[in-house]
Amino acid sequence: MTTTQDSLLKFEIPEIIFGQGALSQVGQCARRLGGEHILLVTDPGIQKAVWVDAAIRYFDEEGLRYSVFDDVVTNPRTFQVEHGAQLYHQDNCDVIVALGGGSPMDVAKGVAILVTNHGRIQDYVGCNLITQPIPPLLCVPTTAGTGSDVSQFSVIADTQRKVKMTILSRAIMADISLIDPVLLTTKSEELIAATGMDALTHAIEAYVSSLSWPLTDPHAIHAIQLVFKHLEKAARSKDIDAFEGMAIASLEAGIAFSNAILGAVHALAHPLGGIYDLHHGLANAILLPVVVRENMEHAPEKFAKIANAMGAETRGVPTKEAAEQVPEKIEGLISALGLPRRLSQVGVQETDIPLLAKQAAEDLCMQTNPHCYIAEEIESMYIQAL
Amino acid sequence: MTTTQDSLLKFEIPEIIFGQGALSQVGQCARRLGGEHILLVTDPGIQKAVWVDAAIRYFDEEGLRYSVFDDVVTNPRTFQVEHGAQLYHQDNCDVIVALGGGSPMDVAKGVAILVTNHGRIQDYVGCNLITQPIPPLLCVPTTAGTGSDVSQFSVIADTQRKVKMTILSRAIMADISLIDPVLLTTKSEELIAATGMDALTHAIEAYVSSLSWPLTDPHAIHAIQLVFKHLEKAARSKDIDAFEGMAIASLEAGIAFSNAILGAVHALAHPLGGIYDLHHGLANAILLPVVVRENMEHAPEKFAKIANAMGAETRGVPTKEAAEQVPEKIEGLISALGLPRRLSQVGVQETDIPLLAKQAAEDLCMQTNPHCYIAEEIESMYIQAL
Repeated sequence: MTTTQDSLLKFEIPEIIFGQGALSQVGQCARRLGGEHILLVTDPGIQKAVWVDAAIRYFDEEGLRYSVFDDVVTNPRTFQVEHGAQLYHQDNCDVIVALGGGSPMDVAKGVAILVTNHGRIQDYVGCNLITQPIPPLLCVPTTAGTGSDVSQFSVIADTQRKVKMTILSRAIMADISLIDPVLLTTKSEELIAATGMDALTHAIEAYVSSLSWPLTDPHAIHAIQLVFKHLEKAARSKDIDAFEGMAIASLEAGIAFSNAILGAVHALAHPLGGIYDLHHGLANAILLPVVVRENMEHAPEKFAKIANAMGAETRGVPTKEAAEQVPEKIEGLISALGLPRRLSQVGVQETDIPLLAKQAAEDLCMQTNPHCYIAEEIESMYIQAL
Repeated sequence: MTTTQDSLLKFEIPEIIFGQGALSQVGQCARRLGGEHILLVTDPGIQKAVWVDAAIRYFDEEGLRYSVFDDVVTNPRTFQVEHGAQLYHQDNCDVIVALGGGSPMDVAKGVAILVTNHGRIQDYVGCNLITQPIPPLLCVPTTAGTGSDVSQFSVIADTQRKVKMTILSRAIMADISLIDPVLLTTKSEELIAATGMDALTHAIEAYVSSLSWPLTDPHAIHAIQLVFKHLEKAARSKDIDAFEGMAIASLEAGIAFSNAILGAVHALAHPLGGIYDLHHGLANAILLPVVVRENMEHAPEKFAKIANAMGAETRGVPTKEAAEQVPEKIEGLISALGLPRRLSQVGVQETDIPLLAKQAAEDLCMQTNPHCYIAEEIESMYIQAL
């Protein structure tokens, strides 16, 4: 590695508190961030799973007031961000707590942007366009995959234009990520599988990213090891140690991708969220083996190391052959999890592919992929995944 | 791994900016932290090496005022911390920049404590006794080893009582660590070697610590790999890529030990700094193989993994035998670096050993060692190292 003044490397993550029972710290942490009146951003599923009640109990114990905003769906929408910001102002909130998967956390970041930077959330799409510090933000993830609790990303869907918009800025990193593996136990097998595949995609894309470096690499590799060790067991048997392993996998993959950024899988997955409202983890899972097969020749040594992390035999195996085991291992895991393998199974139409490819080619995440694909090449990848 | 509410794991590091030429960002970073008048804490050696002039030029470019405090020595003293705090108040400073090795950085943290918490620095010795936030702190390390730029530690010598006092608190973590490998090029071969051995000690102690976890382990292991790859070359040939490797080793070892804490080597090294004013890295280097031989039986699997990271052949080797290669590898590296191997070579007297052992037994770092040694056992280790 040789850095220069023009290629300085950066690394930043929130304060992390991790462990079974960590949710009990949510009130104290919100208080420590200066909170008097919390905006709790969550979704109806979390409400039903009683985690909202639990969080509120811990707010009560600290004498904190709170307003609950749970109008959040998968692939969250611009208007939800606006409504959340209205509630924040109306109730004089001072700290935001996100309790949920990627959607509530991304909405919480969007709300945080609007309450101090004003304007429309669309104004902040792109890199580093946020000028004012956001209010204190505490994230409590309830899925293992998104990594939004430690990342500099927020992805919001513009339903009018049917596009998913990526906001990337150090300014939207949470102050604290409070990770409690027990919260994972109330999710469905399919959601555990899909979000776990999201974590795997983050780790692989961060590891082969053009911005990866020694501070992100060990986390990416370890996350890959953990997914192959724990994901199937977590999804099938809801074993708490497997959930703890997946919580760490999600965390480490999040640390890696927030600092090394992502790649072509995410570039191709985002339009599927915008146009079909497809679950992000599922979109990644279907696209991952296809994109890896294209990417392999652009970073064969790295894919050989990924193969090793996945448990493939790589000693004495030529680099190219070692790398070729990666998509096979991924396909094996997807089959074991019982997830769909083709885009056609989840409603994607061949006629939409030119539009999907156009959006994917312009996606921010394409810039750090080991190779920058043009629209024609992207169309071919969508067709392979169809 | 199984966590509980009573054993939550924590992880926190500063924002990191890394690369050759990173010093050029020091003015902008100080400005971003809200600085108008900087207290620059450094030492005469850094002054002579022109890095102070360079930093001042970058302050000037940003229109920042500054006061230079360079009354800092190895194993820095309580009165130096007090003088720095007086200068901070006298000149109405608002941001502290530490430019140097462990000593200027530890003094800067001490100054930061006093200017907002008042009293004497001795009042804050121990764990989490700092109640008021410190002023913004930016660290620019000029050695590769200390890790103080990313750690929650400050170690200050009380010259009256001849003890080194350990202050451990999340409150004294820097806001930004700005790491420029070019700054390492003006150090002597011996200092590069000794500080590099400090990094190795941090990595090993963090990896076997009772508080180590998956977020600290990969950094500890990678730091060990990097030290064995780069340290000898950095010391002998002052190769810039080797310095870059050592800068990352120091950073990753720092991230690991700040969050997993240390062990018996540091517990035994601190009294040698307090009583003999021995360089901390050198003290660690001499003690490391002796303590490792005692520690091995308490964490054989971990030491086997350390052996592997050091480049020893461990495949098919029984765990105990693999672990036994660790002290041999360390001794080989110390010999290659031309550092002294015995405490008697650096002036330690056998008659002082009971006093040294008494202090070591009470040292904070002993608490996270894989085994807690009593004074008699510690005396025996000092004698083995004599």
